[in-house]
Amino acid sequence: YIIQSLEGVNVADIAALLDELNMEEAIYVLRLMPSDVSADILIELEEDSVVKVIREMEAFELAKLIDQMESDDAVDILNLVHNKDREDVISHLQDKEKSAHIVDLLRYDEDSAGGLMGKEFIKANQNWNVIQTIEEIRRQAEKVEKIYSIYVVDNKQHLLGRVSLKKIILASSDTKIADIYEPEVFSVPTQMDQEEVAEIMRKYDLESIPVVNSKNKLLGRITVDDILDVIREQSEEDIQAMTGFSSDVEESDSIFRISKARLPWLLIGVVGGLMGSQIIGYFEDGLSKYIALASFIPLIAATGGNVGIQSSSLVVQTLAAKSVFEESILNRFIKGLLVALVNGLMLGAFVFCTVFFIYGFEFRFGLTVGIALFCVVLLASFMGTVTPLVLDKYGINPAMASGPFITTANDLLGLAVYFGVATLLLNL
Amino acid sequence: YIIQSLEGVNVADIAALLDELNMEEAIYVLRLMPSDVSADILIELEEDSVVKVIREMEAFELAKLIDQMESDDAVDILNLVHNKDREDVISHLQDKEKSAHIVDLLRYDEDSAGGLMGKEFIKANQNWNVIQTIEEIRRQAEKVEKIYSIYVVDNKQHLLGRVSLKKIILASSDTKIADIYEPEVFSVPTQMDQEEVAEIMRKYDLESIPVVNSKNKLLGRITVDDILDVIREQSEEDIQAMTGFSSDVEESDSIFRISKARLPWLLIGVVGGLMGSQIIGYFEDGLSKYIALASFIPLIAATGGNVGIQSSSLVVQTLAAKSVFEESILNRFIKGLLVALVNGLMLGAFVFCTVFFIYGFEFRFGLTVGIALFCVVLLASFMGTVTPLVLDKYGINPAMASGPFITTANDLLGLAVYFGVATLLLNL
Ligand SMILES: [Mg+2]
Ligand SMILES: [Mg+2]
Ligand SMILES: [Mg+2]
Ligand SMILES: [Mg+2]
Ligand SMILES: [Mg+2]
Ligand SMILES: [Mg+2]
Ligand SMILES: [Mg+2]
Ligand SMILES: [Mg+2]
Ligand SMILES: [Mg+2]
Ligand SMILES: [Mg+2]
Ligand SMILES: [Mg+2]
Ligand SMILES: [Mg+2]
Ligand SMILES: [Mg+2]
Repeated sequence: YIIQSLEGVNVADIAALLDELNMEEAIYVLRLMPSDVSADILIELEEDSVVKVIREMEAFELAKLIDQMESDDAVDILNLVHNKDREDVISHLQDKEKSAHIVDLLRYDEDSAGGLMGKEFIKANQNWNVIQTIEEIRRQAEKVEKIYSIYVVDNKQHLLGRVSLKKIILASSDTKIADIYEPEVFSVPTQMDQEEVAEIMRKYDLESIPVVNSKNKLLGRITVDDILDVIREQSEEDIQAMTGFSSDVEESDSIFRISKARLPWLLIGVVGGLMGSQIIGYFEDGLSKYIALASFIPLIAATGGNVGIQSSSLVVQTLAAKSVFEESILNRFIKGLLVALVNGLMLGAFVFCTVFFIYGFEFRFGLTVGIALFCVVLLASFMGTVTPLVLDKYGINPAMASGPFITTANDLLGLAVYFGVATLLLNL
Repeated sequence: YIIQSLEGVNVADIAALLDELNMEEAIYVLRLMPSDVSADILIELEEDSVVKVIREMEAFELAKLIDQMESDDAVDILNLVHNKDREDVISHLQDKEKSAHIVDLLRYDEDSAGGLMGKEFIKANQNWNVIQTIEEIRRQAEKVEKIYSIYVVDNKQHLLGRVSLKKIILASSDTKIADIYEPEVFSVPTQMDQEEVAEIMRKYDLESIPVVNSKNKLLGRITVDDILDVIREQSEEDIQAMTGFSSDVEESDSIFRISKARLPWLLIGVVGGLMGSQIIGYFEDGLSKYIALASFIPLIAATGGNVGIQSSSLVVQTLAAKSVFEESILNRFIKGLLVALVNGLMLGAFVFCTVFFIYGFEFRFGLTVGIALFCVVLLASFMGTVTPLVLDKYGINPAMASGPFITTANDLLGLAVYFGVATLLLNL
């Protein structure tokens, strides 16, 4: 009955349904379906569902599903299997060629081009003619679901170029591949980061890209469907970094899981706030002389936070879309400070005028708030520019720079600057 | 010389270079290059560069470039031409079939499936055989750069299904299309939002998708390369909305442009801060009795902001990846509040303990800070959940909910709640 009602439903939709079910029900459905369908569903499940499902499966059972997958997906699943069970599963694979491919692919970092590539694609020797190439397509037809380009290699498997299926169809049977292939072909090395691969494919409008080793030997191919997943995952990661979730949560998760994922950042903020209270407490005597100083704490803190986020997000965006004609870091840096200088002066002047002329505080008090604001804008802009660059340099997601730690650090610095300026100007 | 040195350089790279040059230099290069290359470069330029360039071009000159473009790109460029000049350019087009297509495509909203689709694709009548289909491919070979799937239609142009190029190659010449096409094919209506199209293509691993009208008549096709641009544009828009840039800026823009783009949000924050100072000023008498109240203002404000951003970003993320099996709005809402209840209780208790036991304030004071924090967490979570839903309902980018206005409103509310609770509990 279940099989009937799910017939005609796309595997991605079935997967989304199973993600909502509990693990026993999900496994029950997976066992009911034909193994090629189950394999496709397993690929489309969310990572934590996959982990739960494969934990309950026997090695031979999982191997039956993996036998139905393309090598890149097979490796993604095997990467979620415990190290010690992995070999067991691989030994149960029927397709010996594929299992060799899988063992090879397991070597690569999951987030690199090598971790994205699959071994299923069509390659043609430059000495073949069109008929031989079509024969090869026929041989591989079962294994290679989407062909896109055919990659052309020499006898030593070096990548020479590509030829489109369209050209193959329109060429006469005895045309040599060497005569029709395009030698301009983009390729990426195995160790390239997946986001860089994604940006290359976007920029140059590619639906597939060959992966080569340092000697230009053709090792695999990355397809755009997997790149779409990389981009989606990346933008989710960025937002999570910016908003300080400690782990991957979705609205469908349980209340306690969401709560647990959110608390760490909130705690950092709260601890920061408690430290802030110590800073302010330290200036309590001055504060009781100038009680109005307290009124402008939120103004200082909010502006510092806003400036910090704006600066860091501009840098993060630029880092994400690395241009070929990049300005030097130093230029960028100086420019950021100049922008902060302009904005800081304008905001500082605006606030001074409001506080002095409209609110009617004394001159020195207005000056204190205005100058403190100016300093905070400069400082927050400096931090917002430098932090993502430093994080990126050390291989940490730079979007973290708008996250918990930095925001809190900025808040505390802002408070210190504010009361520092007040101490100097108002002789607290 | 310029032509020589740019030979072999990809058009996307040339475009990135021209984006950095001034307008006269860019037009100079565009005029030097062969018109098919210039057309490709123009497509890849940034929008503001395109606007500058076409403002300087004669109608016939621009028409020559548009004659070399696929219809979807031609429409993107024409949408940047002033209304009154547009017809002039179209009247100069050589290819009359394409100009009819363009006029047709100009009707659709740029952000919809209709605005993304092109008229260049291969369609085959179900009554054709493979030979006839290959003939059609040959006829269209010049116009259709990437074929992907061939869409199958009946005599009235209704979409019936798709057949892959691979199948065409491997089938014998006299096979009827009706016998080999796959009737399961995803299609989208012309008015579907581009981001929804992108999500469908990602989810179902499609490299192209047919666009149909309400009667299932095949009107055009969307390709994945344009979808990659949609996704990138979208994530840039989201980050800009979240970080409160008023317009599209990049690091390469001038200091004053960046400064101008950033100031509006900062001003909102500053004005909010000044209003906050009025709120605090209103409680000045109470504040001078309990000067320590001032110390916890940053704690309250920061936590409110953090909770608000977390709640809204989770909702925004869910809105972006609309699942088929969505929980009802009400459920989501209740769940959000329950999470806030849990987190608010824990943070409130933690802060109470710190303030009372460690900092040694009196019991009622600790209670005030703890309860105020709890209320702020609840309130910020409520605002963070409701605002993006309301914005989305009215067609505004929900990512705006973590932007300037909302953050500032949250800050003010948080202050009001804090001093409200303090007034009640401490009898200010
Ligand atoms: Mg994969
Ligand atoms: Mg992988
Ligand atoms: Mg592109
Ligand atoms: Mg794949
Ligand atoms: Mg896939
Ligand atoms: Mg990553
Ligand atoms: Mg803040
Ligand atoms: Mg386009
Ligand atoms: Mg368009
Ligand atoms: Mg997919
Ligand atoms: Mg296009
Ligand atoms: Mg394009
Ligand atoms: Mg949009």
